[in-house]
Amino acid sequence: MINEQYKKMLEEKSVIRQLSEFAAARGKEIGYENVFDYSLGNPSVPVPEKFTETMAELLRSKSSMELHGYSPSLGIASVKEKIAASLNKRFGMHYTGSHIFPATGAAGAVAHAVRCVTKPGDEVLTIAPYFPEYNMYVNMTGAVLKVVTADTEGFQIRFDKLEEMLTEKTAALLINTPNNPSGAVYSEATLRELASLLKRKQKEYGHDIFLISDEPYREIVFGGKSAPYVSSFYDNTLSCYSYSKSLSLPGERIGYVAANPACTDAELISAICGQISRGIGHNCPPSIIQLAVSEVLDVTADMAVYERNMNILYDELTALGFECVRPGGTFYIFPRALEEDAAAFCKKALAYDLVLVPSDSFGVPGFFRMAYCIDTEKVERSLAAFRRFVKECY
Amino acid sequence: MINEQYKKMLEEKSVIRQLSEFAAARGKEIGYENVFDYSLGNPSVPVPEKFTETMAELLRSKSSMELHGYSPSLGIASVKEKIAASLNKRFGMHYTGSHIFPATGAAGAVAHAVRCVTKPGDEVLTIAPYFPEYNMYVNMTGAVLKVVTADTEGFQIRFDKLEEMLTEKTAALLINTPNNPSGAVYSEATLRELASLLKRKQKEYGHDIFLISDEPYREIVFGGKSAPYVSSFYDNTLSCYSYSKSLSLPGERIGYVAANPACTDAELISAICGQISRGIGHNCPPSIIQLAVSEVLDVTADMAVYERNMNILYDELTALGFECVRPGGTFYIFPRALEEDAAAFCKKALAYDLVLVPSDSFGVPGFFRMAYCIDTEKVERSLAAFRRFVKECY
Repeated sequence: MINEQYKKMLEEKSVIRQLSEFAAARGKEIGYENVFDYSLGNPSVPVPEKFTETMAELLRSKSSMELHGYSPSLGIASVKEKIAASLNKRFGMHYTGSHIFPATGAAGAVAHAVRCVTKPGDEVLTIAPYFPEYNMYVNMTGAVLKVVTADTEGFQIRFDKLEEMLTEKTAALLINTPNNPSGAVYSEATLRELASLLKRKQKEYGHDIFLISDEPYREIVFGGKSAPYVSSFYDNTLSCYSYSKSLSLPGERIGYVAANPACTDAELISAICGQISRGIGHNCPPSIIQLAVSEVLDVTADMAVYERNMNILYDELTALGFECVRPGGTFYIFPRALEEDAAAFCKKALAYDLVLVPSDSFGVPGFFRMAYCIDTEKVERSLAAFRRFVKECY
Repeated sequence: MINEQYKKMLEEKSVIRQLSEFAAARGKEIGYENVFDYSLGNPSVPVPEKFTETMAELLRSKSSMELHGYSPSLGIASVKEKIAASLNKRFGMHYTGSHIFPATGAAGAVAHAVRCVTKPGDEVLTIAPYFPEYNMYVNMTGAVLKVVTADTEGFQIRFDKLEEMLTEKTAALLINTPNNPSGAVYSEATLRELASLLKRKQKEYGHDIFLISDEPYREIVFGGKSAPYVSSFYDNTLSCYSYSKSLSLPGERIGYVAANPACTDAELISAICGQISRGIGHNCPPSIIQLAVSEVLDVTADMAVYERNMNILYDELTALGFECVRPGGTFYIFPRALEEDAAAFCKKALAYDLVLVPSDSFGVPGFFRMAYCIDTEKVERSLAAFRRFVKECY
């Protein structure tokens, strides 16, 4: 019989997907250019030309059997080595290829990392606001996701709350910086305090507490700054990366897990991810995509539009009276709604063709997320709708 | 802490992988051309040119954001529709795109199908000889794989043994035709008898028994014949396909689950696979590969070499006194070893640089598998080694 657990999940549709479907349907009525669709985090800048050229060159120059043949189950060795070298150069790390497990995007990377360091019944903590799919990645392994209350002042970490929840049963902490949905980037001070707390708790409980760092937005940081590299603060870190955002190719499903060379069983992590893959039939990311990405590791798409859009929205929203933490990166902004019930607020906005995502599924009530990976021209046109919405409803 | 279950799995290395590594190492000593490596099922014929041309054309003509953007979580609609239309035309089925779930190869397809129709504690039966990774796909969901004794006369199905094992607890039967490792193709008579038994047992137990049909070798059938299409015999069938073998692109991880339109909850299967994907972070196969494959659905690589190799090996092995069922398809042959202990037999063969896989991990003692997806010239050169091996050892 059809598995009832999954069947039930079908009824709980993702709010983001529902809003995105609404936007598409409304677009058919009034033209999609007139729907201010801030629902989905789909990159809106072209893929770097070098990626496209590399793909074409691989197709032209390589023997088809070599190019499209089985990837070794732990990933193509040359690809793993290039990723390690790039991380070492940029972040002063000491990875070798053996610490890198190519995965299908950050989703695949995080899901593998969680399975790697937990067993059923273990607790995995995350910090609100958090990406709702974490519920899936964690709970479907048999481990249990617990959410630490948000620091709504700056979207850093409330260490008092985190310490309360860090118990004997905590196997891992799953963080996301730069953060979806808040746009916040954890500061060096935050990461230092976090490392110090985790080290203390590891000692107290006598077992590892892994830090799973989900960082697909690592290269989208504003003001000419860089995000601090999480793994350099805490040895027991598994970094989960995706090229979806930095290279604008979310459909090609390519990312990795990088195990800090100083973490427990560092030399085994990649191999254990390989075992996990066998069970889910995932195997490796596509060979040609592994090879192509390995040639453009230090390139990114031109992401200036995201910062431009953020500045426009931040200025307008704060001028309209919205309380808002200025995003340090990503392509999300996360203002406080103008009434307590974020869902009601977002529902009213729909009448102005403003598609905003209420914050409840991110683990914080009373806020809303805007994904501004859209054309600046559309962002600018949306401002009048925002003004009317606020004036008429609040 | 690192998950102990997966850590332990690292110690149980796949016999096939070990032999393949031996072959590579030996190749470094004496030249790989002198190692008669029959260990791995890696296709040995070029990818159809039309696939390569389609990939290049997609890169040239499509906007990069459209080409590499997120695939809908249940697969690209146009791709699903094309797959359905191709199956309908070829096999007289009535699929729509909604019955098709693009997956990462047959491994991903089977792993999804198993999760779809079982819950922890359920039993899944398979027929020996069987692909050893089935243990992973099934047991790691919490269901339990049970193996039905092989019909060593013809590698069809021992219905007496199957009926004994089909109990109240059986949720699904997982079959593989054309079969790895035996090369046997289930006949229409076998599939009719199978369908009739499953229908009777469904009635007796009052619940569905799904047939999960793993068919990556569907297009590699000899003698100008076709493999009967399993799903046309039994409504509750989930067909799991991969383009790895027919298009020679195992590294690109592309296949699908096709739910028979008459199966229970047919309209939900694809959506349930989508939910399963969320939990394992698999999401969809890469967008560009989905799009490229959908343009070459009715094309295959030139696979004549497999039949040529099979004929050479079958004639020589039977002349040497090996008992052997003539393969109807695939690129495997599965003769009986010349002593009871297949592992000992294969170990002795290594001294002649013949790399053969003992049958024990396929669920049958006393046989060996040869993957003859290698150049015919090498197959011919291996015959002298076979003659010496048999003469000197038996």
